[in-house]
Amino acid sequence: MLVKSIANVPAEAVTMPGASAVNMQMLLGPADNCPNFAMRKFSVAPGGHTPRHQHNYEHEVLVLRGSGTAFSTAGEKRLTPGDVVYVPANELHQFSNTGNEPFEFICLVPAHVHRPGPAAAVTPAATAAGCS
Amino acid sequence: MLVKSIANVPAEAVTMPGASAVNMQMLLGPADNCPNFAMRKFSVAPGGHTPRHQHNYEHEVLVLRGSGTAFSTAGEKRLTPGDVVYVPANELHQFSNTGNEPFEFICLVPAHVHRPGPAAAVTPAATAAGCS
Repeated sequence: MLVKSIANVPAEAVTMPGASAVNMQMLLGPADNCPNFAMRKFSVAPGGHTPRHQHNYEHEVLVLRGSGTAFSTAGEKRLTPGDVVYVPANELHQFSNTGNEPFEFICLVPAHVHRPGPAAAVTPAATAAGCS
Repeated sequence: MLVKSIANVPAEAVTMPGASAVNMQMLLGPADNCPNFAMRKFSVAPGGHTPRHQHNYEHEVLVLRGSGTAFSTAGEKRLTPGDVVYVPANELHQFSNTGNEPFEFICLVPAHVHRPGPAAAVTPAATAAGCS
């Protein structure tokens, strides 16, 4: 059994094209030998956003702090703490901070996304740059 | 894209042998067509606990509220909000509320655990009854 505090997990800037003012912490992933899915925490600064993109794997999200929106082709939905979001594979999406404090959420993906090897297929939106 | 609030997800009592004063909400699972992993929220009342057991699939846990412990054969570890826990497959474990308010956490498992079909292999501890 592995126990760690989010506070002790290093944060890294998300440098994927289209991301603005986003940090990521890998809470549980390949380095922990998690076989099937990886738990990441994202923090988006006020005014920031994740890339607007799509990829061949899903997201399962839980909002922890702040306020923001989730964009899809069906429109934008407002998000507050306690909201959960499922983004199916291959659906265009983007998370944006619309508040004045950090917008924080966990976002889980299949483990292979963070394993070494061929990169997962990620397609930016035609007009934009992009949750990784 | 699917968005819902935890507040609107029904809670069900966990009736697995060894569970005491535990409710579960299925936040994202098979009914949402999530293909690879399921996100559940557990709430353990003061004095309550999950079964002490082991099974052939892993847990990825994030503590949201309250205080408790995670038992493994290596001993007990104290848990507070912001702690993450990885329980590998086939490791004996139990979560207990040691505080005076609800002990709440999310716990993710592979999706097959909640699909109809042959039950996953779950083994209670020799002395105890049993996070599902």
